[in-house]
Amino acid sequence: MTKLAIYGYGNLGKGVESASLQSPDMELVGIFTRRDPTEIKSISGAPVYSASDISSFKGKIDVLIICGGSATDLPGMTPTLAKDFNVIDSFDTHANIPQHFATVDAAAKSGGTLALISSGWDPGLFSVNRLYASSILPEGGYYTFWGRGVSQGHSDAIRRIDGVVDARQYTIPIDAALDAVRSGSMPNLTTRQKHLRECFVVAKEGADLASIEEQIKTMPNYFADYDTTVHFITAEEMKRDHSELPHGGFVIHTGKTGFNKEHNHVIEYNLKLDSNPEFTGSVLVAYARAINKMAERGQTGCVTVFDVAPADLSPLGREEIIKTLL
Amino acid sequence: MTKLAIYGYGNLGKGVESASLQSPDMELVGIFTRRDPTEIKSISGAPVYSASDISSFKGKIDVLIICGGSATDLPGMTPTLAKDFNVIDSFDTHANIPQHFATVDAAAKSGGTLALISSGWDPGLFSVNRLYASSILPEGGYYTFWGRGVSQGHSDAIRRIDGVVDARQYTIPIDAALDAVRSGSMPNLTTRQKHLRECFVVAKEGADLASIEEQIKTMPNYFADYDTTVHFITAEEMKRDHSELPHGGFVIHTGKTGFNKEHNHVIEYNLKLDSNPEFTGSVLVAYARAINKMAERGQTGCVTVFDVAPADLSPLGREEIIKTLL
Repeated sequence: MTKLAIYGYGNLGKGVESASLQSPDMELVGIFTRRDPTEIKSISGAPVYSASDISSFKGKIDVLIICGGSATDLPGMTPTLAKDFNVIDSFDTHANIPQHFATVDAAAKSGGTLALISSGWDPGLFSVNRLYASSILPEGGYYTFWGRGVSQGHSDAIRRIDGVVDARQYTIPIDAALDAVRSGSMPNLTTRQKHLRECFVVAKEGADLASIEEQIKTMPNYFADYDTTVHFITAEEMKRDHSELPHGGFVIHTGKTGFNKEHNHVIEYNLKLDSNPEFTGSVLVAYARAINKMAERGQTGCVTVFDVAPADLSPLGREEIIKTLL
Repeated sequence: MTKLAIYGYGNLGKGVESASLQSPDMELVGIFTRRDPTEIKSISGAPVYSASDISSFKGKIDVLIICGGSATDLPGMTPTLAKDFNVIDSFDTHANIPQHFATVDAAAKSGGTLALISSGWDPGLFSVNRLYASSILPEGGYYTFWGRGVSQGHSDAIRRIDGVVDARQYTIPIDAALDAVRSGSMPNLTTRQKHLRECFVVAKEGADLASIEEQIKTMPNYFADYDTTVHFITAEEMKRDHSELPHGGFVIHTGKTGFNKEHNHVIEYNLKLDSNPEFTGSVLVAYARAINKMAERGQTGCVTVFDVAPADLSPLGREEIIKTLL
């Protein structure tokens, strides 16, 4: 049994909790929260503890899955916790990954622990697919598309506009761009050609809707470079139609082979996810299994999904995976 | 530089040869053939040697890629060569993989070498995707579809029919089955519901076409369980329209998450390949890179694609892959 614990009990923490119930080789020993643990009851019945008590669990947890945010939580949290525990996070601020890797690596090496950063599906499964494909077909290139799915960052950006009560933003890949990529022509695609942004907004009564729509569509970085549509809906419609967190996307790599590069190949990986946090949680649990095996073999320091051999993700033994999956 | 050699110079050997030219970190030191080497000129200009001289190259080859057939070549060839060389093969007789693994493992351990068996795309990349997906979404299942592509085994079976001069058989996945799988309903699909078989046949002049068609459609194991169409064409049409070896396929895994299994997820991996042997060759070259790295770290015995960490497939260093692909 792998003794698992969850640090941070938001959407992702609950996704890890529910995923852990699907793996008979996993035991969820506790959930750690920065809120008052006496006011929180876990869905699975797993005990809830205060995050401040975590150090007393040293030696009692095989892998700690850290479910904090990349912006402000993980840069401090992961290295601190890596001193005492084997840890996994889903740090996803791409530009800062090398820096995060370095601090976590130093902490884990000093603690004699093993840490996996930036797990999930992007970074994570998508990264692995980019690596496989570009290693196999070097004379080519890959494209990543996201959606259809809810972008929390873009939804939050809309909510900060004056007069907005609630908002949900969907990122939508454009079919024509997907088809152009699959053709192997390796098109140069602008930001606008790859994705659409569709926004559902609940406005305050009497708010200036035209102004809100204009502010969304012209918002730099978030919306200005995209074709954006804005729908004003009621709070009831928001609750009824937009309370889920679906997501997904595509990694499509095309490349040429042959002595005259006369043959085209398309490698496509795609995900259609009803629940982004539950799927991400499922990925984290599979990688927790791998980290536990790798730590038991004596490995320490920081690793990424690139360093994890597929076999370590499986609860099945070598003979079984060769027989049933190879 | 990784010193690569090819053992067996048919379609797959040429695919490996052309793939090796795309990797600046690979040096093709030689091609070994069981035919008379003086009568064979390699396409790349790499030297061609007699297979019987292979043992004199011990110590001069980092990884030997064995491009023989699974039915009669590889069961003897791979263990024999594994005593002296790090080797890779693409053994694909699924039912016999455990036995092949055991004999190759014993040979490689006795020789202090590292061997990878059953590499390619199925077994190979498809196996890896089945493993990732079923480890992440255990409450679910995967389906594998092949095609549209040429099945050499089925083409050969048709050629053995009296009155047949040449034949090409395409395996075609059925769209309705793909859609049913993607829906997450986990349908029970019969053999007939998953794939069609389309045959192009050149018959001898005066042959009984109706009888040939009947013999194909009722052939046990190969065609009897499928909806099969047969087209009689001329030798010129065969050469013009069917001289390529395209292939591909789909691994689609669906699974449920959530405390009440209320969310569906679809993980799909698909390949569309203009040239099956060139793509398979490209996969083998990437895995040769990995086997060389793993052997340099001291690993011996037999491994499969499940044991190879993605990072080892790449010519790029750790910092580079973290920066560009994670």
